[in-house]
Amino acid sequence: MKTFAALALSIATLSFAAPAAAQFEKPEDAIKYRQSALFVMGQHFGRIGAMANGKIPFDAKVAQENADIVVIMAKLPWAGFGPGTDKGRDTKAKPEIWTEQAKFREHADKMGAETVKLATAAQTGDLDKLKSAFGETAKSCKACHDNYRNK
Amino acid sequence: MKTFAALALSIATLSFAAPAAAQFEKPEDAIKYRQSALFVMGQHFGRIGAMANGKIPFDAKVAQENADIVVIMAKLPWAGFGPGTDKGRDTKAKPEIWTEQAKFREHADKMGAETVKLATAAQTGDLDKLKSAFGETAKSCKACHDNYRNK
Repeated sequence: MKTFAALALSIATLSFAAPAAAQFEKPEDAIKYRQSALFVMGQHFGRIGAMANGKIPFDAKVAQENADIVVIMAKLPWAGFGPGTDKGRDTKAKPEIWTEQAKFREHADKMGAETVKLATAAQTGDLDKLKSAFGETAKSCKACHDNYRNK
Repeated sequence: MKTFAALALSIATLSFAAPAAAQFEKPEDAIKYRQSALFVMGQHFGRIGAMANGKIPFDAKVAQENADIVVIMAKLPWAGFGPGTDKGRDTKAKPEIWTEQAKFREHADKMGAETVKLATAAQTGDLDKLKSAFGETAKSCKACHDNYRNK
């Protein structure tokens, strides 16, 4: 069988912006897809945050597992922001996502890069490094939300 | 940085049934989490199905990418079925999930195993093998839905 290494590698090379039409039956599905992927990512990211903020005890192994999932989940949502997916279901996505595609993509790429640093920090088992990487990743989430997500 | 191989490996060893209380702030989050993970998985699985059923042209590379994501997503939902997550948000989950935990887990494990076979089949680039593996995986989804999911 294919190794998990190969599995993850093929996911790592997923293209950002395949046409949504080719991937989702209807805009509603694309919106639900991106919301779902972001929610799953947020849950795992939140557990790292709870450790970084001292709300739950620091467990290096758990932090690492969650960070690894965050890295993979961070690759998925963007396919759900294809052309014509600005409406079709309740969404907080601002129209600027589709008029400033390059800038939006920069935000997504930045967040992806920060999640990789987060996983690297989690791997060290050093809580201070985790806190710092968590903070930087959270900033990249917030920057995109501030620009492209309605309250 | 940690390699993607290592990333995927740590996800591959995720435990099935960590206490939900340790992972989700409230039952509502656990329910939304499992629904989200299953929806993301379903979208990727559906694309393979569309090829298997001749609704869209067969593209071996796309089939492989989607199967790889299915394998990883298939590991996630189960943490969201912890104790006390039978209500708290709209859910089709039947109470039997919590009274027949071992049997439910068997279904989940079976599905996980079928997704790995699906990814192996996708890797061959042989549409007939993909069709067959898709059918077996779909059966494992249906078996669990028939037993544990309300219409």
